[in-house]
Amino acid sequence: MKALVLERVGELAIRDIALPEHVGENDVKIAIDTVGVCGSDVHYYTHGRIGDFEVKAPMVLGHEGAGTVIEVGTAVSTLKVGDRVCMEPGVPDPTSRASKLGLYNVDPAVTFWATPPDHGILTAEVVHPAAFTYRLPDNVTFAEGAMVEPFAIGMQAATRARITPGDVGVVTGAGTIGNMVALAALAGGCSKVIITDISAAKLKTAGQYAGVFPVNVSERTLGSAIEEHTGGWGADVVFEASGAPGVLNDALRALRPGGCVVLIGMPPSEVPFDVNAAIAREVRIETVFRYANVFDRALELIGSGKVDLKPLISETYPFDQSIAAFERAAKGLPSDIKLQIKVATARG
Amino acid sequence: MKALVLERVGELAIRDIALPEHVGENDVKIAIDTVGVCGSDVHYYTHGRIGDFEVKAPMVLGHEGAGTVIEVGTAVSTLKVGDRVCMEPGVPDPTSRASKLGLYNVDPAVTFWATPPDHGILTAEVVHPAAFTYRLPDNVTFAEGAMVEPFAIGMQAATRARITPGDVGVVTGAGTIGNMVALAALAGGCSKVIITDISAAKLKTAGQYAGVFPVNVSERTLGSAIEEHTGGWGADVVFEASGAPGVLNDALRALRPGGCVVLIGMPPSEVPFDVNAAIAREVRIETVFRYANVFDRALELIGSGKVDLKPLISETYPFDQSIAAFERAAKGLPSDIKLQIKVATARG
Amino acid sequence: MKALVLERVGELAIRDIALPEHVGENDVKIAIDTVGVCGSDVHYYTHGRIGDFEVKAPMVLGHEGAGTVIEVGTAVSTLKVGDRVCMEPGVPDPTSRASKLGLYNVDPAVTFWATPPDHGILTAEVVHPAAFTYRLPDNVTFAEGAMVEPFAIGMQAATRARITPGDVGVVTGAGTIGNMVALAALAGGCSKVIITDISAAKLKTAGQYAGVFPVNVSERTLGSAIEEHTGGWGADVVFEASGAPGVLNDALRALRPGGCVVLIGMPPSEVPFDVNAAIAREVRIETVFRYANVFDRALELIGSGKVDLKPLISETYPFDQSIAAFERAAKGLPSDIKLQIKVATARG
Amino acid sequence: MKALVLERVGELAIRDIALPEHVGENDVKIAIDTVGVCGSDVHYYTHGRIGDFEVKAPMVLGHEGAGTVIEVGTAVSTLKVGDRVCMEPGVPDPTSRASKLGLYNVDPAVTFWATPPDHGILTAEVVHPAAFTYRLPDNVTFAEGAMVEPFAIGMQAATRARITPGDVGVVTGAGTIGNMVALAALAGGCSKVIITDISAAKLKTAGQYAGVFPVNVSERTLGSAIEEHTGGWGADVVFEASGAPGVLNDALRALRPGGCVVLIGMPPSEVPFDVNAAIAREVRIETVFRYANVFDRALELIGSGKVDLKPLISETYPFDQSIAAFERAAKGLPSDIKLQIKVATARG
Repeated sequence: MKALVLERVGELAIRDIALPEHVGENDVKIAIDTVGVCGSDVHYYTHGRIGDFEVKAPMVLGHEGAGTVIEVGTAVSTLKVGDRVCMEPGVPDPTSRASKLGLYNVDPAVTFWATPPDHGILTAEVVHPAAFTYRLPDNVTFAEGAMVEPFAIGMQAATRARITPGDVGVVTGAGTIGNMVALAALAGGCSKVIITDISAAKLKTAGQYAGVFPVNVSERTLGSAIEEHTGGWGADVVFEASGAPGVLNDALRALRPGGCVVLIGMPPSEVPFDVNAAIAREVRIETVFRYANVFDRALELIGSGKVDLKPLISETYPFDQSIAAFERAAKGLPSDIKLQIKVATARG
Repeated sequence: MKALVLERVGELAIRDIALPEHVGENDVKIAIDTVGVCGSDVHYYTHGRIGDFEVKAPMVLGHEGAGTVIEVGTAVSTLKVGDRVCMEPGVPDPTSRASKLGLYNVDPAVTFWATPPDHGILTAEVVHPAAFTYRLPDNVTFAEGAMVEPFAIGMQAATRARITPGDVGVVTGAGTIGNMVALAALAGGCSKVIITDISAAKLKTAGQYAGVFPVNVSERTLGSAIEEHTGGWGADVVFEASGAPGVLNDALRALRPGGCVVLIGMPPSEVPFDVNAAIAREVRIETVFRYANVFDRALELIGSGKVDLKPLISETYPFDQSIAAFERAAKGLPSDIKLQIKVATARG
Repeated sequence: MKALVLERVGELAIRDIALPEHVGENDVKIAIDTVGVCGSDVHYYTHGRIGDFEVKAPMVLGHEGAGTVIEVGTAVSTLKVGDRVCMEPGVPDPTSRASKLGLYNVDPAVTFWATPPDHGILTAEVVHPAAFTYRLPDNVTFAEGAMVEPFAIGMQAATRARITPGDVGVVTGAGTIGNMVALAALAGGCSKVIITDISAAKLKTAGQYAGVFPVNVSERTLGSAIEEHTGGWGADVVFEASGAPGVLNDALRALRPGGCVVLIGMPPSEVPFDVNAAIAREVRIETVFRYANVFDRALELIGSGKVDLKPLISETYPFDQSIAAFERAAKGLPSDIKLQIKVATARG
Repeated sequence: MKALVLERVGELAIRDIALPEHVGENDVKIAIDTVGVCGSDVHYYTHGRIGDFEVKAPMVLGHEGAGTVIEVGTAVSTLKVGDRVCMEPGVPDPTSRASKLGLYNVDPAVTFWATPPDHGILTAEVVHPAAFTYRLPDNVTFAEGAMVEPFAIGMQAATRARITPGDVGVVTGAGTIGNMVALAALAGGCSKVIITDISAAKLKTAGQYAGVFPVNVSERTLGSAIEEHTGGWGADVVFEASGAPGVLNDALRALRPGGCVVLIGMPPSEVPFDVNAAIAREVRIETVFRYANVFDRALELIGSGKVDLKPLISETYPFDQSIAAFERAAKGLPSDIKLQIKVATARG
């Protein structure tokens, strides 16, 4: 099967590679239509590793996908051939202690597409458990379906924040994930979201959404924006989506008494933490690792029209130009939110 | 001061009446602009009592109000003369055990406008604690400000439901409160809301909102609508806003495993409760008594444009026709959601 | 294999019966040591059915068990031969939508020991998934291990109550489950538990525990006990464990503003529900269906000595007298909390 | 009135000083019986300041007190002359936005005994709002009553942790507050508490309680203790009560997936925070600032016998030797948990 293979750091190839094809009784086989390019895919391409996960053998990239069911296992009752679907890329041990608690995302046994040593889905077909494959509403396109995975991180953040309806939110960092978080926070109950960045181009994309207020923190402080929007009371929730080391303490000071910080961005190293500032406001801090139990709810929000992810798709490449897509993604243009690859174009 | 006075059951008069005018150090005086007509006002007019609260002496009606601050107490720092505001009509003992817990709505000591023996606000001016008076955003009209009180009940319901972002909601009953709950639930994180009633006219008003799906339960069952919208899984939350005795058990069966019922409607007597149906799904049931700590969040949602209450204002009467407004309200036309009275027209 | 078989309503036999013996890769085989007699076992014996579950073919009884692992599946890493264990009798589809949420107890696909058509464990050996088999701490006996299942219902009740440390609890009904709930509520954070019944014998057993205050509601009202213990403020949580239809409304009135009722008892039919009484205190109602994710925590509490279940074991029968045990259990002596059967005595 | 006055850093005097004596309508006057010596009192004595709070004028010390009501304001109905009571030392603006939310501890307007410029209670009598004065159960002594304030911090920590019954807890730091947290966590639902320190003397005091397992982290790692007690799964909650800068990251690694850290200790400066370690387990972090709404629940636990604070009282001084008590406290003997001063001895 043709696939986009990361041969080693810095070297991509579109070539045939042997991939699992056996459809187990609880599995489905999916013809991939569209796959988004994620920052982690790009990071494996440019650096060969993320934390402890190192690319030691050729690996197919891609984990943000949508497609069509073309075969179903004998025990599958929830899906049928022809269903248009998107897929949750991490598969846990379903009877582990974490999974039994509903926390399957933090099950240490999770395997995850395009995370060494597991292959991704930038290829024609993939076999996947039906339980982690979700039917798209009729009015949701494959392109939108392939956006569910990154949006799911925003959904997890909005869920763990336990938003009270009408809360004022802040998102620090207007990259792909920052945008996803802002939209999930708005759909999830925030009245408005102040989003911060130092890139005018990124803020412009974010600011096109009603309810999202861009603040360029190279021009004014977050504190002054909080003063303006909350009369000095403070934000109810700050979602930290930048990964920048100094942002945590700013976030703490932007909060109202009893407010919440949600940490999504992964900083390169330990960050300084003003514990006393957190204590003085009796702050709650939540963290987000991928997502669990949010794909269905994400699809409800997209299908109902409450969330529109289409403006975040910057450009779509045919599969045979997917290396070009990765080269562009590696440049990190501030105006690019999401590049996608139309795998379906590869079929004869 | 001229006021709309309920002299006794069935008899209203616009006449002068002596009302408190002293502005305490923590109070403000407000010139009333607009007051909504609430079902409870009408019920005192037509029946003279609600539960244990009986009208034994002439009482000014009205508790859904907005106006302008015209005087501030010496210790007030949060408001100033000229501020456009709306008011929370219930005032608790702020240091009671319930209030200290943040549950001031269920403090037994609460006094509440237009609840015997306390006067309401269908008059020119009122004195009120600054702590229960909320500044309107510049883009929120007095008419919208006077809608905050009924909307606050929807907000309380959406808050107590602890909506998870993307939840599918059901509201049973498409009257004033049902509409308020539906809008609060959507703004508060639901992906969609199915609203049920047996009145086509009421459902038509509700159905004009994106995300609200009207279901006439005289024509089809709630069960079939749940099947259609959730594929048989069930709703995440059912908000019971009809007060009809048989609806609770239908609501339980419409829920997903682990779902939630929020009880807002007050039935005329005890209702039958299928405890085993609730247990089989391990349902949670929440109840709503007025509201606490939601006026600011309601105003954020209205001010940000996420919630538009204006289509629910059926007609506005000048103050000198307020008796006509009550007579119309007493008829309970299904197409009437909210009648308002423009008190400000009474000024010379 | 010899087993205690319910041949049909009213007829028990100890006889050989064919039972599954295959140990799957994720299973363990357990030599049963002790099995408790549950009210549901007795009810199948005396009535032949519980709700929709009807005994249509001979069925082995028993689901409260402890024993020793004698064989482990090839993929099992959490247990080894010789481990002393107790077992969770319900096994869900681990990848169902409910299970993924952590709510595997309300997964419609659950199979459960001694619930038609599934056999129970009053026999020498049983095969069970390792994921639902829990190692006993060294200081926990088999008899205590066989008490974990009924105690788990108390744990589920205490968990869903979301007890705030120091809460005052009430348990209505001092039967087996009422006792389990009282102990779990105390261990789970309540400062004290008032337990009510009309049987002096049952109350005597319950009252032997420090922190449990028995109240005979045939002699005094719950209301007067609440007045005495809370100065009129009300209980924080009422656990309804009697299943008696009229108790719900008493429970509501015993609560503080914002209090919680947990429904565990299953009444024979619909019960009258004073919704307005619930609303007036803005009560939360939780329900309990079996349990999920509590066996490990139950074992921690028993192992640490915080919970002592041994006084609740009224008598232990050898396996060859298990029919006598059921006949006694069918009499429902008020002084009997739990009868157990020592299956291990059957081995040669 | 005679009082223990901090004249300036390092200088204490027992002398007459003018203190407020007016009993407002919602106040009570209390004859002080016993006052505990708190680390913050000692810190003002030895350093003259804590953070932004600086002793600029002579200030009476002491805020952990119990005594007897000797006068009640005209509007007070909850207390009467002769009631034995303890007092919550912080008084908020009861109608502030934070107070209305139930978060009165983080109201910026709080005044707090013995926090500049407000006097404390090491004197004969004090006037205090009845709403923050709590009646002692008959079986609770004044000495125990004066322990409620420090225990309240433990209660706040246990409350904010949202302990699930049976959780395994860890407390880092076995000083006064660490002990209080350990006892509150056990009473609040933990099955056991591992407590760590580097002082054998402190660990010995803590280890006398059933369910508390002392671990000397100068001899073995927290990790090895977690491995032993949880089989490698991890603790459910770690309470950080040491204020030592490096402990946070150890705490994160001691947690199970989805576990919680509660920060109580106030470190001298910013601490390094391994955000990625927190994210990998999707950790929740809560912080504790004093307490709100816990005095009544603390008294229930002490009165019911679930919590015994008496072993933590190291020694009691008569009032005329209170300077000696402070000198001893300033030495910080590891075997001293709590010194108290019997003010009542000063009366003629």
